[in-house]
Amino acid sequence: MSEPWTLHPDRALPADPTVRGIAREVYAATKDLPIVSMHGHVPVEWFTQDTSFGDPAQLFVVPDHYLTRMLVSQGETLPRLGVGSTPDEAVETDPREIWRRFCAGWKHFRGTPTRYWLEHAFVEIFGVTQRPSAETADAIYDQVAARIAEPGFRPRALLDTFGIEVIATTDPAWSSLEDHTRLAKDGFGERVLPTFRPDPLLHLDRATWRDEIALLGDAAGTDVTSYAAYLDALRTQRQKFVEAGARATDHGHLWADTTPLDDAEAVRIFDAALAGTVTADEARVFSGHMLFQMAAMSAEDGLVMQLHPGVLRDHASAPFQAFGPDKGYDIPVVTEFTHSLRPVLDAFGHHPNFRMLAFTVDEDVYSRELGPLAGVYPALKLGAPWWFLDAPEAMRRFRESATETAGFSNMSGFVDDTRAFCSIPARHDLARRIDAGYLARLVAEHRLELDEAVDTAVDLAYRSALASYPRP
Amino acid sequence: MSEPWTLHPDRALPADPTVRGIAREVYAATKDLPIVSMHGHVPVEWFTQDTSFGDPAQLFVVPDHYLTRMLVSQGETLPRLGVGSTPDEAVETDPREIWRRFCAGWKHFRGTPTRYWLEHAFVEIFGVTQRPSAETADAIYDQVAARIAEPGFRPRALLDTFGIEVIATTDPAWSSLEDHTRLAKDGFGERVLPTFRPDPLLHLDRATWRDEIALLGDAAGTDVTSYAAYLDALRTQRQKFVEAGARATDHGHLWADTTPLDDAEAVRIFDAALAGTVTADEARVFSGHMLFQMAAMSAEDGLVMQLHPGVLRDHASAPFQAFGPDKGYDIPVVTEFTHSLRPVLDAFGHHPNFRMLAFTVDEDVYSRELGPLAGVYPALKLGAPWWFLDAPEAMRRFRESATETAGFSNMSGFVDDTRAFCSIPARHDLARRIDAGYLARLVAEHRLELDEAVDTAVDLAYRSALASYPRP
Amino acid sequence: MSEPWTLHPDRALPADPTVRGIAREVYAATKDLPIVSMHGHVPVEWFTQDTSFGDPAQLFVVPDHYLTRMLVSQGETLPRLGVGSTPDEAVETDPREIWRRFCAGWKHFRGTPTRYWLEHAFVEIFGVTQRPSAETADAIYDQVAARIAEPGFRPRALLDTFGIEVIATTDPAWSSLEDHTRLAKDGFGERVLPTFRPDPLLHLDRATWRDEIALLGDAAGTDVTSYAAYLDALRTQRQKFVEAGARATDHGHLWADTTPLDDAEAVRIFDAALAGTVTADEARVFSGHMLFQMAAMSAEDGLVMQLHPGVLRDHASAPFQAFGPDKGYDIPVVTEFTHSLRPVLDAFGHHPNFRMLAFTVDEDVYSRELGPLAGVYPALKLGAPWWFLDAPEAMRRFRESATETAGFSNMSGFVDDTRAFCSIPARHDLARRIDAGYLARLVAEHRLELDEAVDTAVDLAYRSALASYPRP
Repeated sequence: MSEPWTLHPDRALPADPTVRGIAREVYAATKDLPIVSMHGHVPVEWFTQDTSFGDPAQLFVVPDHYLTRMLVSQGETLPRLGVGSTPDEAVETDPREIWRRFCAGWKHFRGTPTRYWLEHAFVEIFGVTQRPSAETADAIYDQVAARIAEPGFRPRALLDTFGIEVIATTDPAWSSLEDHTRLAKDGFGERVLPTFRPDPLLHLDRATWRDEIALLGDAAGTDVTSYAAYLDALRTQRQKFVEAGARATDHGHLWADTTPLDDAEAVRIFDAALAGTVTADEARVFSGHMLFQMAAMSAEDGLVMQLHPGVLRDHASAPFQAFGPDKGYDIPVVTEFTHSLRPVLDAFGHHPNFRMLAFTVDEDVYSRELGPLAGVYPALKLGAPWWFLDAPEAMRRFRESATETAGFSNMSGFVDDTRAFCSIPARHDLARRIDAGYLARLVAEHRLELDEAVDTAVDLAYRSALASYPRP
Repeated sequence: MSEPWTLHPDRALPADPTVRGIAREVYAATKDLPIVSMHGHVPVEWFTQDTSFGDPAQLFVVPDHYLTRMLVSQGETLPRLGVGSTPDEAVETDPREIWRRFCAGWKHFRGTPTRYWLEHAFVEIFGVTQRPSAETADAIYDQVAARIAEPGFRPRALLDTFGIEVIATTDPAWSSLEDHTRLAKDGFGERVLPTFRPDPLLHLDRATWRDEIALLGDAAGTDVTSYAAYLDALRTQRQKFVEAGARATDHGHLWADTTPLDDAEAVRIFDAALAGTVTADEARVFSGHMLFQMAAMSAEDGLVMQLHPGVLRDHASAPFQAFGPDKGYDIPVVTEFTHSLRPVLDAFGHHPNFRMLAFTVDEDVYSRELGPLAGVYPALKLGAPWWFLDAPEAMRRFRESATETAGFSNMSGFVDDTRAFCSIPARHDLARRIDAGYLARLVAEHRLELDEAVDTAVDLAYRSALASYPRP
Repeated sequence: MSEPWTLHPDRALPADPTVRGIAREVYAATKDLPIVSMHGHVPVEWFTQDTSFGDPAQLFVVPDHYLTRMLVSQGETLPRLGVGSTPDEAVETDPREIWRRFCAGWKHFRGTPTRYWLEHAFVEIFGVTQRPSAETADAIYDQVAARIAEPGFRPRALLDTFGIEVIATTDPAWSSLEDHTRLAKDGFGERVLPTFRPDPLLHLDRATWRDEIALLGDAAGTDVTSYAAYLDALRTQRQKFVEAGARATDHGHLWADTTPLDDAEAVRIFDAALAGTVTADEARVFSGHMLFQMAAMSAEDGLVMQLHPGVLRDHASAPFQAFGPDKGYDIPVVTEFTHSLRPVLDAFGHHPNFRMLAFTVDEDVYSRELGPLAGVYPALKLGAPWWFLDAPEAMRRFRESATETAGFSNMSGFVDDTRAFCSIPARHDLARRIDAGYLARLVAEHRLELDEAVDTAVDLAYRSALASYPRP
């Protein structure tokens, strides 16, 4: 172990000296570019309230399902890591205890992106100089806690520190967007943008669907008592998002299916949902139908349609019942795009006002489906490696598998997709390093000139990331 | 940008100096070997007519769906690239304008195999010395146009220039083969071979099926009014192909299914097709049945059966209606081989006269299905990486994924599968470089001796490519 | 060709000099660790009888389906390689002839793991100094034959020579375990362990099912005339295995499905099987139900549940009828885990006494399904690359694809899964080299410290391999 703990300037660059030398040149061109974070999950309240992040456990451990899932896999429990509120579980309330458990499990993060992100944040942002372990836990806790308390560590200040030019939050379709209104008044209207996320409204058989519909009706100022009123309310809310500066919608479905129903069938199923008699199959085909409707509305209002299908949520029922969703039990499944996207692409794939970004956690589709599709349809771009694939080896595979059919010009630029605010600089930095390494190899193999590699790197890190989300 | 534009002698070889040194030695052994192009789509008329290629846009842009699809994905339209003939579209007729649009989009080909092939052809064959761009478009156009007009740039002369020992065309099952007959008279009978392609005849629900059947009947001298007559006519035509020097058949189905029907069911479905009442499901099972019949006929007449399934043709309906098939909208789908090929392999997998080459655009099957299958059945060989996978990274993955289960001896040798005649030397050169790099790594990792690597490289580049297509 | 034939000390380490230097350091820490072989198929009789291995052909060629399948794919036949006993086949009985055919086909193993294992065994264990070929076949035969005859080459002695600390055999669920009892008396009770394999008992529609049930009844001392008696008998036999030192069960199903049936349905299907009227569909759902039952019993008795699904056995019917199972015609298929394992993981995934190791021959699931699942469920670990994937490139892909989501701590450590006793040292050595290379790259890319890499390597080679199979 090197002492003191530092970040090597060449980390995550290729080992080969020739390639590394070129990679350094490419990375130098993107290293200090502003961060464009157009697809993320940082709560908008952080920016409106702009208060301190609490303690190190609340900042780093409790809300980060990447961290807690790995520790759970090694025998910890969510309550011992501060997660949960059920009466029969002894939820740990001492942040220092939670922090100790996390540091004691540091070994288990070897080889994972979490390790890279944490290391980056600890050293670069919090000035930590010791490798986490049972022995160093308390000292690191104190160091991080002291830094969190400083005024410069509040969310708005960190936007500057991190060099974030623009960041998008994700907001329910029925949001009043009052936080974004307040941010606009404070001069952050161009910097913190909302994103329209209607998932719970599009899945008729979810337990919360009626509550969501009521919220949508309230927001849109209509009674959603018919399919027509439902479409109207969605259209109304989308328009409010556009006016509040939104650039995109965000759709997380189990399937990528986009097959439209005829109107009568859509009405029939919607009415069945209102009557509480909808079946799982009906809800499934209706969710595909609604993706088609969302695409149609995007072609009207210009919001970029972000689709990231293929994750089975809440795989384990007991943790879901005890602790709720998003606790690390979301698992990918095989995802089909060629047939599934055909209705939307056939209808809008050449529409001048329609743009779709498709993300996947099923790598097989890079070279087989999404690369070839993005390589011909002007409306479709391939989203950056997402979720479990936002990792060094997986990002490298993405470039290697998708570029040859899609080209760099049909890729979205990097998105971080995270609620872990302090990991944002690390995530962008890692992506830029991996891209530099990939491009450097192309140069070293004489398949690209150096000036082209630098130009492409700047595209991927910054220009494409902005251009993929044009103002509607 | 390096000036003037040249091809680096080490392009597409691995960057590591040790591996590159070995790769150079291996590549030196294959670099100048004759080209064997046993699976291609160059029109046979080019060789019979042997006229000049027209203008640079007609040679390089208009007919190459790799090129046009990428430019379309970036906002160009097919008519602006010279594709199409519909009255409501302004089809560009000025080749220089088309060429300018192509050169202006040069950036979008970064990281794609198209870039490598074009660079190779421009520099090696046409003596271009400037990187394509909006600024250099006209100069390059003039340079290419001048070269095209030279007598040495006619198809037959290029066979020598390119070092093409033998090339196979792809011909409809009902072809009279008169072009090949004429070529034989001109002394090209051993050099330009036909390939039997019956796809449209095997898909009973295609709009053109009746026309195709009529053409088949005319060619075979029978009225195809029954299933028995249909099989006879196919057999008759296959025999004509054998006599004209054909080595293989070629089958592009959506599924790899090869399940035979019983005769009564086959007759029933065929009659339904004649009566115009066949269903899509019946047509689908019949197409699998016919693959089994084609295998049975191959076991009789010795034509190698080439199967390349798993591409959904004409994904977008509007471009298909406006511009026809093969315009860049063919997209791969998941493809199953283990169950699908079982009927044919169980029946003929050990037959001394049967040989099947299986191609795929679904990479997952390399290590899971095709590698293990080719690694045991003497009749089955794994075809070279095909279509979207005929690219540096994809070819490397092919070797890495398939070799450990199939071994080099169960691979077909390189095939170029192209109608872009001037890209043939580039494609073979690239494959030889990638193979040299892969073999060199095995040597550098002491998993193979250098003499073995050289011997294997010569197999893959030349000997296997010939041996995989034995004379029936 | 280098003369004489030797093994390079750096074989299978990365070529890049920086990475190789680090890899050497990492490998040095695992090179001489004892071998832990907790999942294998060496016949237990070899250790009870402890006699010589016969001739070179019987030791290396005839029983090794990796070898024979490759030679068959190149035109040899199983009888010519000594396999089979049918009257209409001329089965080769001269071991020297078999050996010559094998050596003449040496070329076909280039690039396969078989080549690495054989080379290792020939040079390291048998002192062979010539590369196999038609010319050297006889000399090598004599060399190997002489060595086999030495007393030091009997199975028990080789346990010491090979440094095997513990080895598990695979035994039918109805085994009396008398060989293991005798080994225990001879002081090998802690070194040679049984493994409970009930597959034929769980598949109601196999031709041998009734015979197997009778054997189970005899072993357990009950008449298996009901579903309840069947479960009891299985539970009884599992207990006998536990008492004989077993650590694990072993399950090879076509699907990974683990959906339980309700009791009445299970009884109904079981009775149908007894009555000889069970359907293929019923047998299929019952096999999934029984995986759930096996998991429930594992949670009771603590035997580790090893699952390796997704192989279609006996793809070709003629070789199966002539020569029986396990002759090289087992071919992988697409395998689903996320939905399939959900019932068992939902029920037992957090159970303190349950542990499942999941293996696959479908690589796609590493990053998509098994990595994410193993990365959260404490009961699930990802088994080492298995069967066709126990090869240099495939092992490397496994680390690259699975580590980022599962981490090293959720991997099983290496298992060799072989009946080829003399290949065991080579297999463990190769895995250690590949892991050293992967870890060294992480160090060279500054994603891991050297001390962590060494610690992880020792885990994967030894400590995790033991810890994944705790004493019940």
